[in-house]
Amino acid sequence: MSSNDPRLLALQQALPELRLTTEASELEHYGRDWTRRWTPAPLAIALPTRIEEVQAIVRWANEQGVAVVPSGGRTGLSGGAVAAHGELVLSLERMNKVLAFDAVDRILTVQPGIALEAVHNAAREHGLVYPVDFAARGSCSIGGNIATNAGGIRVIRYGNTREWIAGLKVVTGSGELLDLNRGLIKNSSGYDLRQLLIASEGTLGIVVEASLRLADPPPPTNVMLLALPSFEVLMQVFAEFRSRLQLEAFEFFTDRALQHVLAHGAQKPFEELHPYYVVTEFAIGNEAQEAAAMAAFEACMEQGWVSDGVISQSDAQAAQLWRLREGITEALAPYKPYKNDVSVRISAMPAFLAETQTLLGQAYPEFEVVWFGHIGDGNLHINVLKPDGLDNDEFVRQCEQVTKLLAQSLRQHAGSISAEHGIGLVKKGYLDSTRSAAEIAVMRGIKQVLDPNGLMNPGKLFDP
Amino acid sequence: MSSNDPRLLALQQALPELRLTTEASELEHYGRDWTRRWTPAPLAIALPTRIEEVQAIVRWANEQGVAVVPSGGRTGLSGGAVAAHGELVLSLERMNKVLAFDAVDRILTVQPGIALEAVHNAAREHGLVYPVDFAARGSCSIGGNIATNAGGIRVIRYGNTREWIAGLKVVTGSGELLDLNRGLIKNSSGYDLRQLLIASEGTLGIVVEASLRLADPPPPTNVMLLALPSFEVLMQVFAEFRSRLQLEAFEFFTDRALQHVLAHGAQKPFEELHPYYVVTEFAIGNEAQEAAAMAAFEACMEQGWVSDGVISQSDAQAAQLWRLREGITEALAPYKPYKNDVSVRISAMPAFLAETQTLLGQAYPEFEVVWFGHIGDGNLHINVLKPDGLDNDEFVRQCEQVTKLLAQSLRQHAGSISAEHGIGLVKKGYLDSTRSAAEIAVMRGIKQVLDPNGLMNPGKLFDP
Repeated sequence: MSSNDPRLLALQQALPELRLTTEASELEHYGRDWTRRWTPAPLAIALPTRIEEVQAIVRWANEQGVAVVPSGGRTGLSGGAVAAHGELVLSLERMNKVLAFDAVDRILTVQPGIALEAVHNAAREHGLVYPVDFAARGSCSIGGNIATNAGGIRVIRYGNTREWIAGLKVVTGSGELLDLNRGLIKNSSGYDLRQLLIASEGTLGIVVEASLRLADPPPPTNVMLLALPSFEVLMQVFAEFRSRLQLEAFEFFTDRALQHVLAHGAQKPFEELHPYYVVTEFAIGNEAQEAAAMAAFEACMEQGWVSDGVISQSDAQAAQLWRLREGITEALAPYKPYKNDVSVRISAMPAFLAETQTLLGQAYPEFEVVWFGHIGDGNLHINVLKPDGLDNDEFVRQCEQVTKLLAQSLRQHAGSISAEHGIGLVKKGYLDSTRSAAEIAVMRGIKQVLDPNGLMNPGKLFDP
Repeated sequence: MSSNDPRLLALQQALPELRLTTEASELEHYGRDWTRRWTPAPLAIALPTRIEEVQAIVRWANEQGVAVVPSGGRTGLSGGAVAAHGELVLSLERMNKVLAFDAVDRILTVQPGIALEAVHNAAREHGLVYPVDFAARGSCSIGGNIATNAGGIRVIRYGNTREWIAGLKVVTGSGELLDLNRGLIKNSSGYDLRQLLIASEGTLGIVVEASLRLADPPPPTNVMLLALPSFEVLMQVFAEFRSRLQLEAFEFFTDRALQHVLAHGAQKPFEELHPYYVVTEFAIGNEAQEAAAMAAFEACMEQGWVSDGVISQSDAQAAQLWRLREGITEALAPYKPYKNDVSVRISAMPAFLAETQTLLGQAYPEFEVVWFGHIGDGNLHINVLKPDGLDNDEFVRQCEQVTKLLAQSLRQHAGSISAEHGIGLVKKGYLDSTRSAAEIAVMRGIKQVLDPNGLMNPGKLFDP
């Protein structure tokens, strides 16, 4: 640490073993997430290794009036981990260990900085699974997953992160350590603060330990890629597959999305082009299920809802098919896409999709728009690619105009402006499309209770 | 309504169509729940039929400074619905309809006063199930289930009420209507107030509508009754069955419990007496599962963990076996039992059970103690029966001494003083055995946000 800032000197003095840095490259590295809209400008980066250090840092922040940005894998897409206004970034990166496993409880206890993929591996070592999964698994941290109630590609079968949190240790905005629910299955003893902390985006406190419920491994599965001739048949194909099969995933993407993934090195699945695709994974634990999969496919072919299909014959091929869907975000990254991550009830999907398609076609005639999404959860990802040469601020400004229209449509369809990315900085201007003024007032009141000085990730979710 | 209380006259004038009563028998009927420790003394009973009426009542309560006790089926065992201090009882009894069903979303939308059993029936009509279930199903209301995050006999397989609530409409303590989550599967847009309201025992607001997720019907099941020779083998039998079968329920009770149910008219399952019994229900969707059930039974017999058993050969026999467990609460009711409803992690069960057995044996040498519980969830129900002739207040006083010791033991084992009944009046003195002072302070702060005048079910959960 080489800073003469008296606040930082006081912190370093209080915690001589704390890794604390103000090096320019570190400030830039830890000051931003996968959004690239803000210029990182944190005061410093603290990398504690123990809960007591986290508490001491928060107490120091209250004494000095310094804002704190809790920081995990910084793979967020809503700016929730951005530090652009002299905040202290409190990175949980060094608190990344598995602490315990209990086979009777089927609970894995971990530190918050552990990557999702490391959680998967630890669960597998014990013959179990942690079933929340998505493409950023290698980089994102479980603490960040909890802070946004991360969803992903298995929600249709296993639900969101919320369903798998058996206990949380949290340091509140006033530095208190709360040990919430402690792995109990049944506990009706007042307000479930564990649930309140999940999806609070670091604005109420910092997750410093999590107890994760694990599940039995899923049955053997197959992966199928379907080519669809039009957008209108999508929900019918979904209904057909859902009624016949135990779906583990049902993901949709457009040909534009596929072209980007192919350009990034993936293997072409069909000779011909098709406008829309679905990747679905389903249980094939017995012969009846295998037959049902073929029956679903054939029924869709007969109806003309599906024009081609391929079913995985091996794990390698399953991975290849999945790559077509999971490679999209990475393939689009160089285009600095403007992202919407929206949801409606499944039943509202057909009307909402039709309306959105019209809206985007009219609003973005000159921009390339790439769609994909978790259709079985009512969750759609819309990516608008920045044309070469267009200034980024101007690009964002134009996109925001369309987001305003999209937010209106979401309000009509009782949807959400953020399905799984969180609100952060990116969507706080649209929070009122999803939450009423009365709800937002209650949220502000609750923040005041847990973070009386307003120092926990201020400006995220809503303005102070 | 025949009262000259100016507050009630004002209410009746504001809402001429509201059913409002101060008749003595109604005050007594609606002023208490299944606990019998408090003398009902409400100001009046209001039975609204519409959300707008509920809001108007709450606004009136704030103007007049009248406390409100939200009231459902009043089957609670913690005094959560008791009105003993001049409160207005706001009964949701007349708001008891199914409002909507959506087959694509698989969501049933209901009013809060509907009985759990009516929800089961409505789900079944659509070929689906609402899987939360317990013995009070015919009388308890879904609003009360939500207010206590009700658990019951299927938690091992389906979780608690919390898992099945897709949306809630709530009138807060200041009369605001919040429309929370609206059936969305993915919605990461700030604090999940729906989750906060679940298990809040009417202290933050009143549930006026609920959207319930439904599930596929379970596979065919069998029910097995097991006789156990000793207490120590219980967790081993559980582990054996859990590892081999898909358990739908795993319930434990003592011979004393059985004797009470038999005296109440149930049919004797075995010729001989055994000290402990288990009722378990498990999927038998295919031959492998049927074979696994027999294998689990035989493995336990070989180990000497099970001394006898019977497996249901028909639905009627399954119901008969279940009656042995489900009839306990009703059979004990005439003895005015003092109830503990406690939980620990499953892994802590063996040590906790042993310790508790010793504690109760020493503490209650002269009282009859009847145990049963949901072993697979770490949930134990302890019922102490009042001896004939002992004054009830004295009986409760003596029992409370033991609850203090039990609470100490729970604190050591990181358990909960209330697994599924809620805290209410009965357990608020022991809340600090389960929740830390910091947690309770946060809860109080949150109540202040949603119920600034402290009028929603005051004195329940914690003192004002």
